Amino acid sequence: MTDQTDQNWDRLWTNVNLATVTDNGAAYGAILQGALAVVDGRIAWVGTAAELECFEWTAREITDCGGRWMTPGLIDCHTHLVYGGDRAREFEMRLQGASYEEIARAGGGILSTVRATRAASAEDLLQSATERARRLVAEGVTTIEIKSGYGLDFASERKMLQVARALGRALPVEVRTTFLGAHAVPPDYVGDRAGYVRHVADDMLPGLAAEGLVDAVDAFCEGIGFSLDETRLIFERARALGLPVKLHAEQLSDLGGAGLAADFTALSADHLEFVSEPSLQCMSASGTVAVLLPGAFYFLHETRKPPVELMRRHGVAMAVATDCNPGTSPTTSLLLMMNMAAVLFGLTPEETLQGVTRNAARALGLGDRGMLAIGLRADLALWDITSPAMLSYMIGAQPPVEIWRA
Amino acid sequence: MTDQTDQNWDRLWTNVNLATVTDNGAAYGAILQGALAVVDGRIAWVGTAAELECFEWTAREITDCGGRWMTPGLIDCHTHLVYGGDRAREFEMRLQGASYEEIARAGGGILSTVRATRAASAEDLLQSATERARRLVAEGVTTIEIKSGYGLDFASERKMLQVARALGRALPVEVRTTFLGAHAVPPDYVGDRAGYVRHVADDMLPGLAAEGLVDAVDAFCEGIGFSLDETRLIFERARALGLPVKLHAEQLSDLGGAGLAADFTALSADHLEFVSEPSLQCMSASGTVAVLLPGAFYFLHETRKPPVELMRRHGVAMAVATDCNPGTSPTTSLLLMMNMAAVLFGLTPEETLQGVTRNAARALGLGDRGMLAIGLRADLALWDITSPAMLSYMIGAQPPVEIWRA
Ligand SMILES: [Zn+2]
Ligand SMILES: [Zn+2]
Repeated sequence: MTDQTDQNWDRLWTNVNLATVTDNGAAYGAILQGALAVVDGRIAWVGTAAELECFEWTAREITDCGGRWMTPGLIDCHTHLVYGGDRAREFEMRLQGASYEEIARAGGGILSTVRATRAASAEDLLQSATERARRLVAEGVTTIEIKSGYGLDFASERKMLQVARALGRALPVEVRTTFLGAHAVPPDYVGDRAGYVRHVADDMLPGLAAEGLVDAVDAFCEGIGFSLDETRLIFERARALGLPVKLHAEQLSDLGGAGLAADFTALSADHLEFVSEPSLQCMSASGTVAVLLPGAFYFLHETRKPPVELMRRHGVAMAVATDCNPGTSPTTSLLLMMNMAAVLFGLTPEETLQGVTRNAARALGLGDRGMLAIGLRADLALWDITSPAMLSYMIGAQPPVEIWRA
Repeated sequence: MTDQTDQNWDRLWTNVNLATVTDNGAAYGAILQGALAVVDGRIAWVGTAAELECFEWTAREITDCGGRWMTPGLIDCHTHLVYGGDRAREFEMRLQGASYEEIARAGGGILSTVRATRAASAEDLLQSATERARRLVAEGVTTIEIKSGYGLDFASERKMLQVARALGRALPVEVRTTFLGAHAVPPDYVGDRAGYVRHVADDMLPGLAAEGLVDAVDAFCEGIGFSLDETRLIFERARALGLPVKLHAEQLSDLGGAGLAADFTALSADHLEFVSEPSLQCMSASGTVAVLLPGAFYFLHETRKPPVELMRRHGVAMAVATDCNPGTSPTTSLLLMMNMAAVLFGLTPEETLQGVTRNAARALGLGDRGMLAIGLRADLALWDITSPAMLSYMIGAQPPVEIWRA
């Protein structure tokens, strides 16, 4: 421990059990009967109440947490939560027995969301996205990643990313933006896939990046999405621009996207139901996080689970996110996703908590959050629970009793 | 329509789309651009805005609903939400690879909840149950059924039912109590099953009924629960006391419990993953409701779904409930159960809405609620949704913007 004489803190929380999510040897990185102090929005001290007796300190404000549990603020590292319209009618038609063709004829599918998103004003998009984000924030989420990808033309992708940025100003949450121009081929480019990919890589990406709207670059690498070569072209442009990449990979088949992502030292590869062991080894070597998205798995009745045991064996860090989107994961509950990751994928409660804190931070390239440790942002959530396992055990846990943001 | 001249209402809601859940020929029993009036806590008039122009009326209070959707207040017709402790540790151990034997040795399983419930004071039980019920109420639930069954001795079963009654006084929700003494054989009666069943039927049931604590009688009819003969004994006593029955039946195997329930004109048979077609025919004839519990199906990784198509074919009414309990369905979201009933069991959004309104009312023997129709209780929920399908489409929909209770 550093020299602790004469510390002067802005705020001190006492009588609190800390799930630090650090590697301190205890499950959850727990410190029972702990205390945590903050200076200038950063964690300045973490330890036990007993340690607090051993040196001199002052604090302008002291909060007795009544023996509750504190975790880092949660991080939802994969969402598409800016979009127009909804897909409830399509969902209903499917349950009434309609075929995919009938649904497509009725205007369903991802392109219906593209149409609605293009047609919506920035104000309308901000309002509906704020509604959704507010529900995440109420659950203790203090950082949200938001992808573009329902605009699929320059002006509409720009509108989505601007709305995402505006959302971060409107709510007490930090928004990280990801450009996902390669989400689907828009109607305007049917028959000219190559032309669209060039437009994404040569026009949209550099233009939007120049406006400061892009924190990372993503693509949907899948048989029904973009090929490995198309993805590589976009990743090369991202690398030239100095932007980190992530990838929707191996959700429905194994194209080798996760391996490509690792080649580009991607922050994360996401979904991964069909990922191969060699790709996982590459991800391990490149430090690429596996982002698991149980909401889409559940909603699409997928049967093949991501190979969690292999991920553990190869030391691939696992994150968990909502994938909030109108077509395949219409949810705004990260806590429910923690439960689904446990129930459906077999993650332990400790792994799910790591998945929405420290590993989610890594999946966004953010080294300043995700644990309760000195120097990190004081994004904090306080929970009325008997153990951190409760957050995964409940099918949608109770929201925290209090949330602080650095 | 009845004579509508000169109506004087306490309250009128206008500019509202009504999902009446009646058989008016439209999906959801919808009345677009409707209005609804209340006198003395009962629905006094339902119709379109246009019809409202055709006669004279007064209303002491008029609410413009801004084109939103109104449904009946929701009904959760199967819960065990009064209990002590939680089972998070057991959940965690299972995910860490512990065997059932190890969990039992560590004090897990239903008997751990019995221990915690017996040990808890009525005040503590009321507090934790109120917390859970509050979350249901926030979702628009205006009627909740609560079962005993974690006491398994007279005093503890009584305590649970008294807490359930107290809950109904503490929150804006009506509580219906169900005596479930035959939930498990308590440790005190190991080796004397018959003695316990006699104790339930001869002592507990009549005693608790005499105190007005029992609205219905239930049993857990299963290989790991109580046999058909044991269940019959308890049902006969319920019949002698004039109390309606319900049954946990055919969740893990087909013992014929649903057929027995039908023989006793049970209000409902619940779970039913393994129910046979002949039993469904009996349920149809007796008007017994099938209560589907997708939360437990999900949490237990069950693979055999209730035969929804057969239920439709035989005209068995389907309800949907949370089964809120610490061991197999730790959830307090009826909206999420609507989504799970659709995603996991294939119910249409209209069926899930019927399942938490009119059919749930039938499953509780309540003829005075569950639809927006003249004479019924004015339990109402107002939703900011584009169609009633949204309530099932979202993986845990947004709560209503306003709730009224008769
Ligand atoms: Zn996605
Ligand atoms: Zn039950």
